[in-house]
Amino acid sequence: MSKTIDFYFDFTSPYSYIAAERIEAIAAKGGRTVNYCPTLLGFIFKEIGGGPLTAMPRKGEYSLNDFSRTARFHDLKLNFPKAFPANTVMAARAALMVKACEPNAMGAFVREVFRAYFVADQDITQADVIGRCAAAAGVDAEAAAKANDDPRWKEALKQAVQQSNEVKMFGAPYMLVDGEAFWGNDRLDQIERWVKDGPF
Amino acid sequence: MSKTIDFYFDFTSPYSYIAAERIEAIAAKGGRTVNYCPTLLGFIFKEIGGGPLTAMPRKGEYSLNDFSRTARFHDLKLNFPKAFPANTVMAARAALMVKACEPNAMGAFVREVFRAYFVADQDITQADVIGRCAAAAGVDAEAAAKANDDPRWKEALKQAVQQSNEVKMFGAPYMLVDGEAFWGNDRLDQIERWVKDGPF
Repeated sequence: MSKTIDFYFDFTSPYSYIAAERIEAIAAKGGRTVNYCPTLLGFIFKEIGGGPLTAMPRKGEYSLNDFSRTARFHDLKLNFPKAFPANTVMAARAALMVKACEPNAMGAFVREVFRAYFVADQDITQADVIGRCAAAAGVDAEAAAKANDDPRWKEALKQAVQQSNEVKMFGAPYMLVDGEAFWGNDRLDQIERWVKDGPF
Repeated sequence: MSKTIDFYFDFTSPYSYIAAERIEAIAAKGGRTVNYCPTLLGFIFKEIGGGPLTAMPRKGEYSLNDFSRTARFHDLKLNFPKAFPANTVMAARAALMVKACEPNAMGAFVREVFRAYFVADQDITQADVIGRCAAAAGVDAEAAAKANDDPRWKEALKQAVQQSNEVKMFGAPYMLVDGEAFWGNDRLDQIERWVKDGPF
């Protein structure tokens, strides 16, 4: 049986930011580690339809309030980015480089990028921002900043998108625990029970 | 400040069933009562687009599993109805009759109809089923069974749908607490904190 929680996400997803701040502590309660799987929601939506919550009638306005309230509920900061959604290709390629080359820093790097975007309202499409996130996570800043132009991480991102489609991802965060799918920050309470007490 | 939680729902919504089983206990923790507001999601979706979760690519399959798992998480029974979604016009008119004429039985009646549909897999489009739900809730069974043909409850349902559109409902359950909107069974944890400790 797998000892990981597969955590599929896109750096532009607010609920993924919130869940990313919580998932490692929850995983640890069941002796699990987190397998971070950055992907691109845009390619998921191309397959099955869909789009940013914030663009939906009524639900969009609700969501903007709910993002902030849900962050406060979990004692997290959230300053909704002026530029939303963001193109997260560069951030995802950098994350896949970190995952491959410095796997122990992956969680920290993921959180740094999320905080850069959702707390500091920085432009995560810029290489210098990605580099600073890497440095803060103890990762080679130059390598992270250049990952976007490296064929290895371009190819890794293509495969990551394909993988997220294969596991039937339809929104973010999307988590697999022992093959069981859980969608949304809302489901971390169920994941916590699952990893602590087993399937229910 | 209002002392109620406005609970907008459609009897064909699985997450509304789950939330309806939980909302009164949560409301009571903050000294609140529940104002049940039956409506018709179909008319909401006509305004803003949308449709049953179960019809959506990938999300539909996920949802069928999530309904049952979420029910188990809350120690509730759920046998997904063979006929889904249901036409809930008759159930909603009966509920509005109960709300107007026997308000103290409203919560019990709502739960009886939900259980008839989501536990006993009964056909809630049938007057005899609605009548039995009424009887089980201590309500005049004949009056409930006939509410569907009464112009008063036809008009009440039209107004209920209009009201749910006015409060910007986009899915179910949709709850208003002190004017703050909360969507989904998932948000009952936030509502609990709100009614116990105040806005956050």
